[in-house]
Amino acid sequence: MTSVENNSLTTSAGEFLLSCRALIDAELDRLIPQEAVEPARLHRAIRWSVFAGGKRFRPALLLAVGQTFGADSARLLRTACAIEMIHTYSLIHDDLPSMDDDDLRRGRPTCHVEFDEATAILAGDALQTLAFQTIAEDEGLTTEIRAQLVGELARAAGTPAGMVAGQARDLDAESKTIDPEALEQIHLQKTAALICVAARCGAIITGADRGELTAITAYGRNLGLLFQITDDLLDVTATAGKMGKTPGKDARSRKATYPAIHGVEATSEQIDLVYRSACDALKGISRPAKLLESIPKLIAEREH
Amino acid sequence: MTSVENNSLTTSAGEFLLSCRALIDAELDRLIPQEAVEPARLHRAIRWSVFAGGKRFRPALLLAVGQTFGADSARLLRTACAIEMIHTYSLIHDDLPSMDDDDLRRGRPTCHVEFDEATAILAGDALQTLAFQTIAEDEGLTTEIRAQLVGELARAAGTPAGMVAGQARDLDAESKTIDPEALEQIHLQKTAALICVAARCGAIITGADRGELTAITAYGRNLGLLFQITDDLLDVTATAGKMGKTPGKDARSRKATYPAIHGVEATSEQIDLVYRSACDALKGISRPAKLLESIPKLIAEREH
Repeated sequence: MTSVENNSLTTSAGEFLLSCRALIDAELDRLIPQEAVEPARLHRAIRWSVFAGGKRFRPALLLAVGQTFGADSARLLRTACAIEMIHTYSLIHDDLPSMDDDDLRRGRPTCHVEFDEATAILAGDALQTLAFQTIAEDEGLTTEIRAQLVGELARAAGTPAGMVAGQARDLDAESKTIDPEALEQIHLQKTAALICVAARCGAIITGADRGELTAITAYGRNLGLLFQITDDLLDVTATAGKMGKTPGKDARSRKATYPAIHGVEATSEQIDLVYRSACDALKGISRPAKLLESIPKLIAEREH
Repeated sequence: MTSVENNSLTTSAGEFLLSCRALIDAELDRLIPQEAVEPARLHRAIRWSVFAGGKRFRPALLLAVGQTFGADSARLLRTACAIEMIHTYSLIHDDLPSMDDDDLRRGRPTCHVEFDEATAILAGDALQTLAFQTIAEDEGLTTEIRAQLVGELARAAGTPAGMVAGQARDLDAESKTIDPEALEQIHLQKTAALICVAARCGAIITGADRGELTAITAYGRNLGLLFQITDDLLDVTATAGKMGKTPGKDARSRKATYPAIHGVEATSEQIDLVYRSACDALKGISRPAKLLESIPKLIAEREH
């Protein structure tokens, strides 16, 4: 978070993100079994990965959208945490030796390195389960909204159009040359789907109308693309210290990235394009959305 | 299924199980993306494991309980399939090299052997997601029941009291000597929780009253223990041909099993005990339950 704290361009989004973290972390701490509860090793592994210093971008986005539409955070917080659980489960499984084989995340050992592979697999599995349980049992929401949210989140996290589908496509892409459309499909599913659903859930909980939900979906989709493309670019340009992981790793492992296919210059142009698309989408919302307007800038200017 | 088909003791439960399989398989085929849909390799891997000749015991149990309480199968089928998806995801992840490292299941290569480890991890992940999506989007049920079912299934599949917790405890047990209570805890969480929730979901969908739900819970819990203990015993006594996997594997891998801790004779006595407890539990149901009465016998007398 140093980059946001020290950034002279810190916007209201940056401040909002920081203010959300404590709220989200406290709720995650309530929702996830404590380390002393058996099976303790599993719960230690889950907590190792959930409380690893993540920025909580996805849950904060859900809170930002929900608050824009007038909901207080109490109605939003559990669904926000559920999305962070899905995100964390995907990181744990992504880092496994048979997947991306990463030893380091945010400057410390990944779950399977700190514990073991079997425990890391189970920790990810349990986090996914807990995400859906958290929404299903959220008594602050009607059962109608709960059922809708579980369905939305599952579609965004699963296959054929969600996060796991994107990861499978990404694996397939390692062994062949892919075209720009295939790359966008990977980005949309692997990263943008979960970011987009975070925005959508914020709107759904607050009963946004169909037109507003369409606008928020376009906003979330472009925000997700912006997130992934800037991430790809940072992998090429950043230093190890700022990233907390080894830069250039994507290129060496022949990952399908935007700079690898289009070059650095076209990548910057694409970033501008999706940035503008995210901002434009907000014109479909008939209420003040200053906070949402400042989020794309925060993503475009981050240093990991 | 050869053992059931050729068994002269085939009961009404055996016939019911067989009659359910086609129904469940057809619905699973509708719910799971076809192999031609991209990412095709992921969907092939999912289907490889889902359509591997499983007996569909858990979903059939849900149908049996639901029909006993008067529901037609249309209201029960999707939740039944969701439970089979959770079961299959757990088998795929269990078989991974860092877990049980099994190359063979039901006489054919396991998912990570036929495909690869990364694909097998993602296939399991996606199946879990699809299970919750299936229930959340089941328009034959009220949203109240859907939310309740998602919560029930998540608790039975997750941690600290469900299937993943049982698997984590089982892993911990490999490196130390465990006592009988710890073993029962592993069995209850690793196997009985999902079998018990299958029975409970059948009762919940049909609006069973509190007393009947308590009886069904005791029935499902003992049925689950019966299932696991007979499984442990079969691992000691069966031949490879009948099991479709290598017998004696549990003993060699120092798995915590009932025969290993109590011996074969005490294991048979324990089987009688939980068998009787399952049958006794049905006295709490104030309607004919012949089908449910015949299920424990089918489990106790199976040959894998």
